[in-house]
Amino acid sequence: MKFNLHIPTRIVSGEGCLKENAGLLALGKHALIVTGKTSARKCGALDDLLPLLAQAGIYTVIFDRITENPRLETCYEGGQLAARMGADFVIGIGGGSPIDAAKAIASFAANPTMSPGDLFDASRRQNPSLPIVAIPTTAGTGTEANPYSVMTLPGGEHKKTYSAPDSWAKVAFLDPRYTATLPVPTTRSTALDAFAHALESFLSPKSTDVSEMMALYAAHKIWAVIGNDPAVYNMEMRRELMAAACAAGIAISITGTGFPHPLGYSVTLLDNVPHGAACALFGGDYIEYNSREEKGRERIERFCAAIGTDPKTLAETLPRLSGVKLSFTEEEIDRRIKLISGAKNYVNSPYVLSVEEMYEIYRKHFGAKEKE
Amino acid sequence: MKFNLHIPTRIVSGEGCLKENAGLLALGKHALIVTGKTSARKCGALDDLLPLLAQAGIYTVIFDRITENPRLETCYEGGQLAARMGADFVIGIGGGSPIDAAKAIASFAANPTMSPGDLFDASRRQNPSLPIVAIPTTAGTGTEANPYSVMTLPGGEHKKTYSAPDSWAKVAFLDPRYTATLPVPTTRSTALDAFAHALESFLSPKSTDVSEMMALYAAHKIWAVIGNDPAVYNMEMRRELMAAACAAGIAISITGTGFPHPLGYSVTLLDNVPHGAACALFGGDYIEYNSREEKGRERIERFCAAIGTDPKTLAETLPRLSGVKLSFTEEEIDRRIKLISGAKNYVNSPYVLSVEEMYEIYRKHFGAKEKE
Repeated sequence: MKFNLHIPTRIVSGEGCLKENAGLLALGKHALIVTGKTSARKCGALDDLLPLLAQAGIYTVIFDRITENPRLETCYEGGQLAARMGADFVIGIGGGSPIDAAKAIASFAANPTMSPGDLFDASRRQNPSLPIVAIPTTAGTGTEANPYSVMTLPGGEHKKTYSAPDSWAKVAFLDPRYTATLPVPTTRSTALDAFAHALESFLSPKSTDVSEMMALYAAHKIWAVIGNDPAVYNMEMRRELMAAACAAGIAISITGTGFPHPLGYSVTLLDNVPHGAACALFGGDYIEYNSREEKGRERIERFCAAIGTDPKTLAETLPRLSGVKLSFTEEEIDRRIKLISGAKNYVNSPYVLSVEEMYEIYRKHFGAKEKE
Repeated sequence: MKFNLHIPTRIVSGEGCLKENAGLLALGKHALIVTGKTSARKCGALDDLLPLLAQAGIYTVIFDRITENPRLETCYEGGQLAARMGADFVIGIGGGSPIDAAKAIASFAANPTMSPGDLFDASRRQNPSLPIVAIPTTAGTGTEANPYSVMTLPGGEHKKTYSAPDSWAKVAFLDPRYTATLPVPTTRSTALDAFAHALESFLSPKSTDVSEMMALYAAHKIWAVIGNDPAVYNMEMRRELMAAACAAGIAISITGTGFPHPLGYSVTLLDNVPHGAACALFGGDYIEYNSREEKGRERIERFCAAIGTDPKTLAETLPRLSGVKLSFTEEEIDRRIKLISGAKNYVNSPYVLSVEEMYEIYRKHFGAKEKE
């Protein structure tokens, strides 16, 4: 297998890593900080960051309008703001959403004449993005260590991924303290997202020696924590989860994700199921369908052996941890499958799921509800 | 432990990777190719490269004066040449030496008023180095994936390491075919060098999750090949060794090396023992001394378990594979220890070697010779 490697992001980690490595913030004199309404303040990241920027003489504006499943139009507005203030770089603080948003904003800021939809057209992104700094406050998406930025399109029913050679963060600061204020269910669902990245990357036909190494490293650490479904997450667990989420983010930068991701998008967008929980729900199906082929079965067995479990336990535990309990009518299922059946992820595993099988899976999980 | 990561080099690998990724060579219009007298031609790398550069309209000059243990003065001359020709970037092709040399030349070229010794003084290297491309033709040093450049100082009795934030290659092309013309003893000794990197990195107190991952990946692959001391190296083995050497190069970019490296420098410079063989000879001692402390013993046991051997076998096999057979008088030993006793590597393992112990080790291996 190939040893290919390209990780443009410098990753520093540990409690206090922002202050210890403040010099890495010197990417210009004007910074737009991109964040959600409250979490960056509540977790302490903003309180750590602002004095460091002030000491470095960096003028900052805070754009705190990013919601979960960040909207393309909001990122466009953030880009316009960044351009108007003359931002030299963009700092994303938060879970996946503000960091994904920071990537889009960094491109809009450098190309203020682009329309929102132009983001997905490399020929319209003429100027390179502003440099991006990522400060994750969840241990989940791994967006701090890959080029992906998942945007929710106008209308709110579709997601589309933006990715470019310059949509990697220049620096990522992984301080597990910033995840300490997360409630247990959020900690669990974000960890399940990272676990899904590791599992789906490992089974991808595009996996390489490096993606495998990162995937197994991540899965082993996450399983050791969430396999026991702890009632409290201590700092040591949070440290492990943060490193793991980042490694899993690197793994999918090489391979992309598999079918649990698109299967989950519908219930995330329409039914507010957290993204990681949705991935875990369909993670059981991912193991089951892929076990039907020799190549898939072999890979799953190797994955399970490396993390210290077996396929049956894993396939049962993931949906249980997801905690998802929903039921839909046949019409509701139909609407949800139509939203996701066009994704590319279905070919990214040994077993390629058909549209009929998507219905099969949805009916199995959600099909109890009578027509209203 | 920390998940810190900073690998500025883009690594592509596989047979034909140069041609497949020729676009990555577009780093300017004028390139200085740095290489040794014959190996880059013999192995086919130069024949692959030159047409690609010509097709891309890149004007090239070949500087083929790099010897093993590259001399600082020669690199200075190469830098002057690069500056005179207006080189935009530097391509190192060869074993460790031409790539190490390319790093130094890239800095001299960007700073043509520096004197040779200024290379080691960050304040004198005012302009950033020219971009560097690395095309290894051995699977050993790992210099393609770290910032180190080991220079032999005027007089030929001392080595000094140059390393800077911009002394990493921009791109490295790992094509195992380029190692196919290497004689078996060279293949073995370069593999032993890479193995030494993995082992010494793993035991370093500076090791991180990432350096450990890379070290174990490398050691496992190398041991699977050289543990059996094959009479012929096939392409599959060469592919494994090349990936492993690169991973081990990344590992030491984080941790540095341990005491086998400086212990070996004297016999490499004065007695022509290949660098990797010298490291392997003292690798046995490295295991033995570090086993005297609990922390060292634990690490060695974990390392051996991960690669599928035991400490005793490893400690016996490494010196045997080195094939070194030399004997010195007490005066000769004294001269060699004096050259190496000032190195910093001695503190970079659980067991810190004293100068008395350096004599002890040298006498054990070489102390049979009567005064002439």
